[in-house]
This record gives sequence, C-alpha cells and structure tokens, in this order.
Amino acid sequence: MDYREVEVEGEYLARLETGSDWRAEIEALADRVGVDAGWFTAMGAVRDAEVWYYDQEGTEYRSVTFDEPLEVAACVGNVSLLDGERFAHTHAVFSRRSGQAVAGHLDSGTVFAGEVYLRAFETPLERERDEVTDLDLWL
Amino acid sequence: MDYREVEVEGEYLARLETGSDWRAEIEALADRVGVDAGWFTAMGAVRDAEVWYYDQEGTEYRSVTFDEPLEVAACVGNVSLLDGERFAHTHAVFSRRSGQAVAGHLDSGTVFAGEVYLRAFETPLERERDEVTDLDLWL
Amino acid sequence: MDYREVEVEGEYLARLETGSDWRAEIEALADRVGVDAGWFTAMGAVRDAEVWYYDQEGTEYRSVTFDEPLEVAACVGNVSLLDGERFAHTHAVFSRRSGQAVAGHLDSGTVFAGEVYLRAFETPLERERDEVTDLDLWL
Repeated sequence: MDYREVEVEGEYLARLETGSDWRAEIEALADRVGVDAGWFTAMGAVRDAEVWYYDQEGTEYRSVTFDEPLEVAACVGNVSLLDGERFAHTHAVFSRRSGQAVAGHLDSGTVFAGEVYLRAFETPLERERDEVTDLDLWL
Repeated sequence: MDYREVEVEGEYLARLETGSDWRAEIEALADRVGVDAGWFTAMGAVRDAEVWYYDQEGTEYRSVTFDEPLEVAACVGNVSLLDGERFAHTHAVFSRRSGQAVAGHLDSGTVFAGEVYLRAFETPLERERDEVTDLDLWL
Repeated sequence: MDYREVEVEGEYLARLETGSDWRAEIEALADRVGVDAGWFTAMGAVRDAEVWYYDQEGTEYRSVTFDEPLEVAACVGNVSLLDGERFAHTHAVFSRRSGQAVAGHLDSGTVFAGEVYLRAFETPLERERDEVTDLDLWL
C-alpha cells in the first residue's frame, strides 16, 4: 500500500446549484478555491444520474443511467489532477422512491440540491495510468 | 455554487446509545458540545428506520418505513440551525440481512449501535426556505 | 450518548494495493503510521466481498458473500484497539454492474483499487464487550 501524510490548506462547505452537474460543480469549487488535491463527502438529491461500473476484466467502464429523481444518500470522493485538469473522482449511493439503493462511480447527475464538505490538501495528487488495473490512479 | 471556508472549533467521536433515536442523538451531541454547525459521517446499526424521499415535482417528502434491523452502512450529514434549533440533516444507507441496500434522508431510526465522527465549525449555518427547491437550505 | 473530543495527530491518503485485502490494508496503514485510533472514509472497487449483517436478536453475525467485481461506492469506518490489536471497523456500500447496491459490515474483500482518507487521533480507542448489544464497542 502506498500512502502519504497530507497537510491541510483549508476546508470548505458548498451548496451545489440546482440544475448544474454534480461532479462539475465539485470541480468548479476546486477551481474557485485553487485546490489541486482534496477529499470530500457530500449528500443531497439529483434529478438523474449516470453511474459507471468498471468491468475489471474488460478494463472499461460500463454506464448505467437513472432517468429519475434520486436522493444522494452518500457521496465520497477526491480531487486530483488528471491530464493537468482538476478531476473529482466521485462515488455515490442514491435512493429511489421505494427506498431501493443504486450506486456507482458518478459520471454526471443533474443537481437538485447538494451539500458538500471539501478538505483541501497542500500536496498535489496526480493521476497516472496504472498498468495493473488500466485505471488512472494517484500515489 | 455557493461556498465558504470554515474554521474548525473541535472534533468529536460519539457512541450513540442503544434504544435512542439516531438523529436525535446526533442533535443531542451538538447540544452537549454547543455546536451550531458541523459535518459528520457515521456507521452502525438500527432496529428500524424511517427514510424520506423528496418528491421533486410535488415538493414534499414521501416516507418509507423499514421495520427491521438494519446495518447502517454509511451515514453522511451536517448540523445547522433550522428555525433556531439545531438540526442534523442526515442521509444514510442501510443493509438488510440479504445484503440488499436501502437508503434515503433519515428522519428517524432506533439505534442499536452507532459510531459518529463530528467536525464542528465556528461559523454557524442557517437554513432558510429556498424557492427553487422548496427545501430549507444553507448558504 | 458517550462522546469525547479528539486531538488529531496526522492525516493520511492511501492507495490500497490491488490483490490485497481491503480491511487488512487499512489495518496495515494504521500499523505503518502507528495509529491506534482514527476515522476513515474510502472508495474504490473490489473483486469480491464478504459482508456481515448483525442478527440483533441472535447476537451473532451472518455472512453474505458476493463473488463478483463490485464498485465500492462508499466506505466509512474507524480504527481502534480490539484485544490489543489494531482493528478497522469497516462498513461499505457496493454496486453491481446493474447499479444495484449491496452493503454491510465489511469483513473482507479483494482490492481492485482503493482510495482511503484516514484521520488519526492521539487518544486511543479501545473496544470492550458491551452487554446490551453483545458487540465490542468503544467509549
């Protein structure tokens, strides 16, 4: 396992704007506060969501779209640099009206309401292609 | 997106009391340590749970009750002031014996065991009615 | 409710090693940085997972195994001492290719990729048998 101690340069609360994209809003927050590395948790609701599932054998993402309002019951992710751009690697668990939960790697979702806590680190995190998983990983 | 940098005034670990209400216990923790704004994550188990799903078109909450023991697989939320009272906005993901996950906005649930990490902020957060979503939002 | 204020002695980002065990890797991280108490959130993917559900009446864990690749959509837990050893109490929510979520107390799971944020506390946490729940709890 690879690890590093991180130094914090600030922490932020944000309310995501209704109608915007969930992940793009978190990246916009990172841009606004000039953060290249951070960790966040979040919750709220979306109008729809596209989640990805990684096919570990085929080494490619498969997409599933939920075209319905969903609660964002839990969202965990981090900000790092991917090809020189700030990228919010975002996983989330959603719930439907029945209470049923669906989840995955959140590619996009239209914000209904979103509350985010972001912890910004001084040390930048950079993603690079990992040969074992064929994913872009940091450290 | 609206955001603010927050200053921390303390951080706390709590063990929720068996038989009490999950959300009320987090609000009691906020009362005990005098915290008007904070962010928490938590996990544990409940004996039952009432979760809400927001009907974004009808702009009202719909309730679903799970009258069975559940693991609390993930819980994310925050403390803020709502009508002058401390309110723990709490989302959670639960699991049933089969492993199936259910989730939503946690209104109430009887604690079996609960472990909470709360980060308290100096800046108070106040919820006010948002016209677009008809929800009480901060910032 | 029992609680305590905690003092932080460091915070860490880790990338879990492909092929290792998810929970053992978090415990190895705690060992490497000499942490007896901490709180973490994490996300990633596993090749399989064994999750536990606590039978609150029978006071024993029931195991469910998912022998398939899964996204780790959310993972919340803490590090404490259990019988003198560092123990990562780990809950997690997973997603299947369909987007369906499953969840529970994570006993083991083979890491495909894992990203962890650990906050280490100075005060040690020790688990002891709780008579009411027949679980090992701290505080």
